[in-house]
Amino acid sequence: MNEGLFITFEGGEGSGKTTIINKLVPLLEEKGISVLTSREPGGVRIAEEIRNIILNPDNKEMCYETEALLFAASRMQHLKEKVIPALNDGKIVICDRYLDSSLVYQGYCRGLGFEKVMSANAFACEYMPNVTFFIDVTPEVGLSRLKGRNTKIDRLDKESLDFHQRVYDGYLKLCDMYPNRVIRIDGNRDVDSIVSDILERINKIM
Amino acid sequence: MNEGLFITFEGGEGSGKTTIINKLVPLLEEKGISVLTSREPGGVRIAEEIRNIILNPDNKEMCYETEALLFAASRMQHLKEKVIPALNDGKIVICDRYLDSSLVYQGYCRGLGFEKVMSANAFACEYMPNVTFFIDVTPEVGLSRLKGRNTKIDRLDKESLDFHQRVYDGYLKLCDMYPNRVIRIDGNRDVDSIVSDILERINKIM
Repeated sequence: MNEGLFITFEGGEGSGKTTIINKLVPLLEEKGISVLTSREPGGVRIAEEIRNIILNPDNKEMCYETEALLFAASRMQHLKEKVIPALNDGKIVICDRYLDSSLVYQGYCRGLGFEKVMSANAFACEYMPNVTFFIDVTPEVGLSRLKGRNTKIDRLDKESLDFHQRVYDGYLKLCDMYPNRVIRIDGNRDVDSIVSDILERINKIM
Repeated sequence: MNEGLFITFEGGEGSGKTTIINKLVPLLEEKGISVLTSREPGGVRIAEEIRNIILNPDNKEMCYETEALLFAASRMQHLKEKVIPALNDGKIVICDRYLDSSLVYQGYCRGLGFEKVMSANAFACEYMPNVTFFIDVTPEVGLSRLKGRNTKIDRLDKESLDFHQRVYDGYLKLCDMYPNRVIRIDGNRDVDSIVSDILERINKIM
């Protein structure tokens, strides 16, 4: 393998992406595959600075367009500093959320439209994932899992339940739009079944 | 006049945009026209925060794509909070630099391409100026004027002379691309002649 493989995970809050990735990575590494796991802003200093502006609860007057562009800016810095070098080293890069999250959250839920958000992400479009796993759990299941968590609440987490339903609907639309790239994974099964399902699909494209 | 008029000024450093605007505005106001003068980030808090990230000399590792997207993000916040409300109030909005500056500086000079930078600015494209005055002075004249100034040097000002020539070339390309919107103004004349030239052109479109 000369060039790496770019794999992204998508899904609503509480869909179990992080748990799945944490179980998946050691299994890939056991096979001698070099893996970089990341999530935006991924510890990249400038990308973190940009995220701080987005997540600052004081920035209530931020318009949706600005928010979408800041996500796109943060994304590019993470991509250039971390993802692309790893891909050039032949690694598998597994990213927890990527451009599709912007399409769903800003494009669909905020109502900016898939097309405009895709335009705003024109630079990142040159680096589309080889495959994207959408972890499909209903908003109800996702939210009930979230309630069990004790995490810091930021501006985006405060969105209403309604919003979580819209996120789910947005992902379903995304699956329809990119049937070749986005693979829908039933996330209601036990984690081991999900991970072995995903592992099998990765093996097929490697 | 139910809707306002959106006028932007463009040109390299030292082209005299600010001096021209400062002479032009009172002449418009004398006629009873309500004018808002602005320049990005225009005192808009979130837009300022974003600009601080761009201009921070420590952020040397910032990639050009991130820079372009941060300018686009700052632009949208300024546009939504300040420019659009004024236009809706029927004002003339005069903005010192706008989207064209990104096309020239990031698109042409940084080599990101007009098309990609235009895409990144897809939201702002819905609010294109009614008219744009490009103040045409050669890079040599512009730079000799700059040397007489005593301003704080930021990361962008440190660019080489070569870069200033590229800025000029970029603006000439822009004039070719948007012959109806972008009006080239000979900036080598005395300020009063320039201002009366511009005033006459504004009168024609009002």
